[in-house]
Amino acid sequence: MLPTANPTPPFVITRASHVVLAVTDLARSRDFYRDVVGLVVTEETGDTVYLRGLEESAHHSLVLERADAAAALRIGLRVRTDADIAAAERWCADRGLVHERVHRAHQGPTLRFRDAVGTHLELTSSMDLVPRKMQCFDEFTSGAPQRLDHFQVVSHDVQTATGFWSELGMRLAEFTAKDGTDELWGSWMEVKGNTHDLVFTNGRGPRLHHFAYTVPDASSLLHAADVAGALGFGEEIDRGPGRHGISNALFLYLRDPDQHRVELFTTHYQFIDLEDEPIRWDLSNARRAQLWGMPASRRWFFEASEFPGEPVREPLLQASPQTLEDYLGVH
Amino acid sequence: MLPTANPTPPFVITRASHVVLAVTDLARSRDFYRDVVGLVVTEETGDTVYLRGLEESAHHSLVLERADAAAALRIGLRVRTDADIAAAERWCADRGLVHERVHRAHQGPTLRFRDAVGTHLELTSSMDLVPRKMQCFDEFTSGAPQRLDHFQVVSHDVQTATGFWSELGMRLAEFTAKDGTDELWGSWMEVKGNTHDLVFTNGRGPRLHHFAYTVPDASSLLHAADVAGALGFGEEIDRGPGRHGISNALFLYLRDPDQHRVELFTTHYQFIDLEDEPIRWDLSNARRAQLWGMPASRRWFFEASEFPGEPVREPLLQASPQTLEDYLGVH
Amino acid sequence: MLPTANPTPPFVITRASHVVLAVTDLARSRDFYRDVVGLVVTEETGDTVYLRGLEESAHHSLVLERADAAAALRIGLRVRTDADIAAAERWCADRGLVHERVHRAHQGPTLRFRDAVGTHLELTSSMDLVPRKMQCFDEFTSGAPQRLDHFQVVSHDVQTATGFWSELGMRLAEFTAKDGTDELWGSWMEVKGNTHDLVFTNGRGPRLHHFAYTVPDASSLLHAADVAGALGFGEEIDRGPGRHGISNALFLYLRDPDQHRVELFTTHYQFIDLEDEPIRWDLSNARRAQLWGMPASRRWFFEASEFPGEPVREPLLQASPQTLEDYLGVH
Amino acid sequence: MLPTANPTPPFVITRASHVVLAVTDLARSRDFYRDVVGLVVTEETGDTVYLRGLEESAHHSLVLERADAAAALRIGLRVRTDADIAAAERWCADRGLVHERVHRAHQGPTLRFRDAVGTHLELTSSMDLVPRKMQCFDEFTSGAPQRLDHFQVVSHDVQTATGFWSELGMRLAEFTAKDGTDELWGSWMEVKGNTHDLVFTNGRGPRLHHFAYTVPDASSLLHAADVAGALGFGEEIDRGPGRHGISNALFLYLRDPDQHRVELFTTHYQFIDLEDEPIRWDLSNARRAQLWGMPASRRWFFEASEFPGEPVREPLLQASPQTLEDYLGVH
Repeated sequence: MLPTANPTPPFVITRASHVVLAVTDLARSRDFYRDVVGLVVTEETGDTVYLRGLEESAHHSLVLERADAAAALRIGLRVRTDADIAAAERWCADRGLVHERVHRAHQGPTLRFRDAVGTHLELTSSMDLVPRKMQCFDEFTSGAPQRLDHFQVVSHDVQTATGFWSELGMRLAEFTAKDGTDELWGSWMEVKGNTHDLVFTNGRGPRLHHFAYTVPDASSLLHAADVAGALGFGEEIDRGPGRHGISNALFLYLRDPDQHRVELFTTHYQFIDLEDEPIRWDLSNARRAQLWGMPASRRWFFEASEFPGEPVREPLLQASPQTLEDYLGVH
Repeated sequence: MLPTANPTPPFVITRASHVVLAVTDLARSRDFYRDVVGLVVTEETGDTVYLRGLEESAHHSLVLERADAAAALRIGLRVRTDADIAAAERWCADRGLVHERVHRAHQGPTLRFRDAVGTHLELTSSMDLVPRKMQCFDEFTSGAPQRLDHFQVVSHDVQTATGFWSELGMRLAEFTAKDGTDELWGSWMEVKGNTHDLVFTNGRGPRLHHFAYTVPDASSLLHAADVAGALGFGEEIDRGPGRHGISNALFLYLRDPDQHRVELFTTHYQFIDLEDEPIRWDLSNARRAQLWGMPASRRWFFEASEFPGEPVREPLLQASPQTLEDYLGVH
Repeated sequence: MLPTANPTPPFVITRASHVVLAVTDLARSRDFYRDVVGLVVTEETGDTVYLRGLEESAHHSLVLERADAAAALRIGLRVRTDADIAAAERWCADRGLVHERVHRAHQGPTLRFRDAVGTHLELTSSMDLVPRKMQCFDEFTSGAPQRLDHFQVVSHDVQTATGFWSELGMRLAEFTAKDGTDELWGSWMEVKGNTHDLVFTNGRGPRLHHFAYTVPDASSLLHAADVAGALGFGEEIDRGPGRHGISNALFLYLRDPDQHRVELFTTHYQFIDLEDEPIRWDLSNARRAQLWGMPASRRWFFEASEFPGEPVREPLLQASPQTLEDYLGVH
Repeated sequence: MLPTANPTPPFVITRASHVVLAVTDLARSRDFYRDVVGLVVTEETGDTVYLRGLEESAHHSLVLERADAAAALRIGLRVRTDADIAAAERWCADRGLVHERVHRAHQGPTLRFRDAVGTHLELTSSMDLVPRKMQCFDEFTSGAPQRLDHFQVVSHDVQTATGFWSELGMRLAEFTAKDGTDELWGSWMEVKGNTHDLVFTNGRGPRLHHFAYTVPDASSLLHAADVAGALGFGEEIDRGPGRHGISNALFLYLRDPDQHRVELFTTHYQFIDLEDEPIRWDLSNARRAQLWGMPASRRWFFEASEFPGEPVREPLLQASPQTLEDYLGVH
């Protein structure tokens, strides 16, 4: 059965906030996100680079940390107020979830925790303000990404993940299920009034599949591809440009120097009214993955970033290799 | 002093829902909104045409009603649930506001009322669902408007209007004030997490200045202008294409056959975090109206649609004709 | 050695004019080119449909003829005047080329002939004029193709083809050659002042690989892909959207119901000055095929339309299967 | 009567080549053309800056020369070969036109001359080659102008100018004439196969109204406007974005720090076939100036750059001030 969003969640999540990546060559990764993707560098310290989209007034939406091995350190969500952090802390304790108050530079009260399927997260209620750059058009480069929008996580148990986040108020906008069954293979959940803030798809997990920034329009998306090509990252596009059936996003996926994946996409449709039902896509419907064009690369389907120390589990829902390829539309 | 959004409003408004216009030639107005603007006709009856944007699943966001005289009949807002309609009804009664439960075809419980500055409105909690057309790309025409986004109302008393709607939970994202004073000349208020859902600007009011639909990108905006030109409505563009300083919208304004005004614009920036402060624009700052380009036409500034039977009052805040022209940037 | 353009050719070719295709389901092919590609139908007779791009004043640039079997019947080039047709006829006779004066509806004097590598062509000096539709923006659909631009032919002997057309005044703008050698694997030749009007690439030939129409911009290209998807032709995109290194074209390739291939692309760079040298691309340089993104499909590389009755020959230049795949960048 | 293009001109002009401007603040003008317009700086010397469009392989298409007073020094056209320069020299001598062989850095043989209506020009047959930057997408800024395309000159005698250039092989693509008469008020003449390379319009002249660069698409045009706004040149847009009826160009006009005017526009339609007739626009037809939108500013109509030492004459064709305003569509 499909989980439904808790109308009175224990604390109020408002949006995707930031992602923290361990990278093995800090300068190279910074250059990639600044020059190839087009993000703004807010601040650099010896071991850390903070970046943001052009319209963002929050200090950072992407944090790069120098490390010996690449990893997805954590994804961050915003809650409305400091009181929500306190409420979240109590709720984690009640549930027996691994959690901890942490201090993060430029962030307000922050709570680190691990969700029911092993995703590493943190919640924060505020950040230092910095100027929005959305009218500094002369500083727009490449895709001119405007803001962090959502995360996609590969999970061994999409059903459990979806139930967990539904209880926290996230609402299913679209989902993938095995034909004729209730088996959830993918769930697109939202909290900010459009298609998704957090996505879980079936596979070996938990692993961060990608984080996504919005771009102003289709031209920006193609310009990002052109700039990627010009700067030697043309082969690091592992999917797109294309149009997903699910969510209707016009997308481009890029791999960074450590093979973390970032998506650029144009905006969502609005999803606010309670009478709207989530859209179901059968696994056998290839239009779910893309309305047109060439299939994604194999590495888009099977590669993702692990969370440090978190064991990766085989998916509960399995399919034969052939069926899986058919589902994925990869050949 | 700036009003602040009530964190616990008496009922929950979620978004701009629809606008109802009295038009003197129903077929001609339908053709305009379908062919020149690009909206989808959901349904036609003898005296009424219902239209919507391409991504909308709600039955209508624009209603045209045949009438002897053109007028803005009312603007509609969505509330979250039926219980919010009941709460709104009690609140209107407590405040002594003119209000009435009404039946509207294809809408759930609906409450008609008049706000503190005379704007004619209605609230509804649901609508009949119809298919989203966002992936029927072969049906996209002209600007391919995706969804109704916001309303702008000219008011004789922006301060009172802003206070009224702040109490109902609307939050100021940007505002215009006379240099060195707190005099509110314009307020951009939001409830759905981006720049504005309801705007009030100083002038003879109440009158509906425009309602606005989002378009996919800048190319769509220019294509709408080209189509307007091809279909003989080229002179009915009374502003744009241009870029507002306020809200950063890339805009195009069109007048319909009764001179009601519709805006097409690309999307907003996100405005969710509570630590964000509203952006102040001094009246003397011409970049507030547009970051570049030619001034708006005089009729853009001074013409708007009246609400039937509602007296139009002179603005409380006045300026000399010369100063006013300077403020407006019209010459 | 690279052929150079004859500065005083025997007759003056001015541009790519039209292509004539045999199709097995006339109505279905017409619908494809009108609705999925966006061409204008100029005229329909019982067995023939004439189409053109939106800016074209010539009666047709694409002719579909009902047939039992699909084929590329011929490609058409324009010459400047009727006198050029007469000169071409003499030249064909002198060379012993198969040729014939033919009558074609809506065309001026027309000469059918076969080039040195077996390509079926015709030359004409004028066409009936019809209104340009470039300002009928309300009639733009899908990619809004503006004009026929060029042809690409697969040939068993690119060197001979290039020499033949150079003598007729065509000038090499770019070419592909095997690393460290003069072996011509592909030649992009132009006569109208930008990158190419006629292209030959190495392979089993002669076969028509594609004909290409210009589109106004990148947005149109993506809209064509979206419309193709919406109308059930999403899997008939066999390459793109992408950016060729050669010629810098932003491209999309579509297969019609008979698997003829049409390219939509944004415009060329200008190539007029005599001091400009042709750009050489080594076969081993993958950026030649695309500056970024996913490789083309296998069918893009190996499928093309045969000319009726014309034997298809194996290419003179051969490579091992592995090397060939490396050259093509297909996997 | 309309002049017709000489099919065997005394020498072969191929395209608009370059423009040379006297500017009063060399660094400021360079910054404008590089940062606000987006041109590439090829070379700087103490008193001169050479710039070009991103796709251009010729050393310069815009030359800025430090001077005490702003002026349009000359416009440059390309001829095919050195022999054409020699032929042009003889022709000027035969006609008794002011002319002179000059040495210009980075140019081949160059002939300075003055046309029949006082326009200052030079012809050259070649330039030093530099790398095309069209695939250096990471260096694209603002409008990403690709190449110089055409010039517009205000002339006191459009009829004479048109006759002069027709004799040199230029062909009328579109023209403006007073209703019901043959009075030529504007002529759009081409030599490179699309709408225009050289335009003359009626008014006080000779003065250079503008020179124009192509941009990749509508998005680039709007981005240039945004960048102009961001860099403080928002009020230096004196027309557009808009769509001309004549030539169908989507345009934006900017004034540089000395008030020289540069146009950015998307590409032309093709104009090659001899059976195409020039398009006539009646002066009373406002769609000729723009298919939609707001009228141009007064300064767009009446301001232009003088050639040094060249007397400016009143136009032979006059209209009453009211009629003139009606013609121009300026109010």
